[in-house]
Amino acid sequence: MHEFRFVHNKLYCESVSVKELALRYGTPLYIYSKKTLLDHYHKIEDAFKSIKPLICYSMKANSNLEICRILVKEGAGLDIVSGGELYKALKTGLSGSKIVYAGVGKTEDEIKFGIKNNIFLFNVESLPELMVIDRVASAFKKRQSVAIRINPDIKPKTHRYIVTGRHENKFGVDFDTAREIFLNRSRYQNLDISGIHMHIGSQIVDARPFVRAINRMIQFVEMLGSKGIHIKWFDIGGGLGIIYSNEKPQTAKEYASAILPLLKRLKAKVILEPGRFIVGNSGILVTRVLYIKNTERKNFAIIDAGMNDLIRPSLYDAYHEILPVESVPYTTKEGISTYDVVGPICESGDFMGRDRKFIGLKEGSFLAIMGAGAYGFSMASNYNLRPRPAEVLVYGKAHRLIRRREGFSDLLRCEKGL
Amino acid sequence: MHEFRFVHNKLYCESVSVKELALRYGTPLYIYSKKTLLDHYHKIEDAFKSIKPLICYSMKANSNLEICRILVKEGAGLDIVSGGELYKALKTGLSGSKIVYAGVGKTEDEIKFGIKNNIFLFNVESLPELMVIDRVASAFKKRQSVAIRINPDIKPKTHRYIVTGRHENKFGVDFDTAREIFLNRSRYQNLDISGIHMHIGSQIVDARPFVRAINRMIQFVEMLGSKGIHIKWFDIGGGLGIIYSNEKPQTAKEYASAILPLLKRLKAKVILEPGRFIVGNSGILVTRVLYIKNTERKNFAIIDAGMNDLIRPSLYDAYHEILPVESVPYTTKEGISTYDVVGPICESGDFMGRDRKFIGLKEGSFLAIMGAGAYGFSMASNYNLRPRPAEVLVYGKAHRLIRRREGFSDLLRCEKGL
Repeated sequence: MHEFRFVHNKLYCESVSVKELALRYGTPLYIYSKKTLLDHYHKIEDAFKSIKPLICYSMKANSNLEICRILVKEGAGLDIVSGGELYKALKTGLSGSKIVYAGVGKTEDEIKFGIKNNIFLFNVESLPELMVIDRVASAFKKRQSVAIRINPDIKPKTHRYIVTGRHENKFGVDFDTAREIFLNRSRYQNLDISGIHMHIGSQIVDARPFVRAINRMIQFVEMLGSKGIHIKWFDIGGGLGIIYSNEKPQTAKEYASAILPLLKRLKAKVILEPGRFIVGNSGILVTRVLYIKNTERKNFAIIDAGMNDLIRPSLYDAYHEILPVESVPYTTKEGISTYDVVGPICESGDFMGRDRKFIGLKEGSFLAIMGAGAYGFSMASNYNLRPRPAEVLVYGKAHRLIRRREGFSDLLRCEKGL
Repeated sequence: MHEFRFVHNKLYCESVSVKELALRYGTPLYIYSKKTLLDHYHKIEDAFKSIKPLICYSMKANSNLEICRILVKEGAGLDIVSGGELYKALKTGLSGSKIVYAGVGKTEDEIKFGIKNNIFLFNVESLPELMVIDRVASAFKKRQSVAIRINPDIKPKTHRYIVTGRHENKFGVDFDTAREIFLNRSRYQNLDISGIHMHIGSQIVDARPFVRAINRMIQFVEMLGSKGIHIKWFDIGGGLGIIYSNEKPQTAKEYASAILPLLKRLKAKVILEPGRFIVGNSGILVTRVLYIKNTERKNFAIIDAGMNDLIRPSLYDAYHEILPVESVPYTTKEGISTYDVVGPICESGDFMGRDRKFIGLKEGSFLAIMGAGAYGFSMASNYNLRPRPAEVLVYGKAHRLIRRREGFSDLLRCEKGL
């Protein structure tokens, strides 16, 4: 559920008209609903309340400072994957003690930055990385907690680019390597190797792959237990799918009820890393129709948002629902036309949706690209030298700019005065 | 040909060691060779010198200010596709009289910006756009030259995202629509509709689709001529392919000798829009190996460049040659290992090359991702909150930063003080 709905044929975000926002802030424009954001966070929190997990919002889904801050104020920790994300995580006011840091390519500088700021946990993805963290911790005279990311070789049904838990993927280590690490953990004198981590992929709509993966992880933990090694933290990652089209993803409750019985067998503190689940349906990308172009073979609605603003359709063949911000009432189906909704960028890969039906669509109409809260702005670029869009937060009747639109001069910023 | 070559097993850009640049400026790092850039520009210029075309470098391939400036100083015009590109084109010192502006989604503001700056030619992609340009020109009391972009319905062999000249693509108008426009051009009182434009796609390695398309365009021009309508400009677009792997693309000379006889049948001034051909092999992306990760199923070389720095492998399944910056001499084949070269970003789509062979690759080694000059930096993003890389120009023995590396504070710039 989300707080974008039609009232008398006009799309609202909470109590604010989306058209009003588009006129006020310009397009293309990302609009987020604070209530939706919090609702999704609370859904996870409630579903898992019996085990009080640490919920670390996965910043890579959307790293807008205000969005992170809202979740941090609500009690969330943050799941980060880079020095840039750590920098911003600290700017939310969060202390290192609620930050977990994953990623296969942490540089030594990034590791230093993390240790200096006392981050809670590194999720370690390889043996050489483990050695670097040990060495850096030693230089800082600190003892650093780490979890070993294990790749459980599970294949969820999702886009091949966001499957991350197969052995042919670059992530984590296999069970044998993990066992070796735990059995020899005394070698890493500056590390407290007491956690395990998994993350099998993204946009997974069904609990079964999670159950299979967690079962494998538990077997592993029990094997370790039989050798006197006890796990303090079990980071089960993120990956919960959301509704983009006609998916019927598990609810947070269903997900929890499938895996809680398994998790309760362990004494470990559970860490969750939801990203898309929290922010995906909390945001939309609003765009204006620049031109209607009817050709013999197709009708095109050319909009002012492009693949530089939202790359998911191009990169993942992702489906996003596209709704008119003001829908035209109709009685017959005669006024319906079918359009390819395409952006202004000079390549055919620049499309938002194909063969979409609209009534009375015309130049100047506003369209809302739904479910654009996750992996929308965070992947935006300046391709075709297009300034990146503004982001606005709506809360009740109020709204506020949470990232200003880039201007032309921003495009030159790093090239001036050289 | 390009100016990246091995001298005693060390990769040089012109007379500068690539390793030295990597150490000096850090990685990931884009490095460009000025000589290669100019050589490619001159190849086009020479091949077509018998007709003295206007060569408009296509900025979208690489819009670094210094790169554009070098070409502009050499006599090039610029092919732009957005207000941002126009802004930067003017910053090179180029006057509007050598700027051509294409793109399906020009906003009214962008059109105003162009007309105010007296740009030479709009390549118009639809009837409604034509009307907007006419209206804006009227408001500015100017007469604006335009070319009609015609979609000749030709299918070159290239990635589906960069085919642009089929009827199911969003670009241009069909011959019937173009004919209607020309026959009724007196309706557009503020426009001088005297040009035609085509652009059939990108990375096309063979002259035949160009010949087919140009032949169709010439038939059209001759039909117009028979009705007393004369074409002053024929913009044949860009799209010339380059060598990424084992393509054997046409040379500029071969391309010219295939199409010059056709072009000479017309009295029109020819405009060319090369982008990738000029800049593609003029740039490389240099990266450092962070970790070597050997797993049962694969070896991974985890590098410090990711899909945010160069998205072509992910987005287009593009092949880029990856070379060691210092190659290890070898006599037997025993030291060879095969690696997936992957970035630090948290998705499986973040790879630069699969199953690549290297000898003695280790942590700290530098790798050069070749052919990264076009659609490399211009598509870069801050995904995973990674600051965008620096860009360096090499000329002879000298080198110079032409875009500084972004810092963490750049990531927050648009969110501060709101």
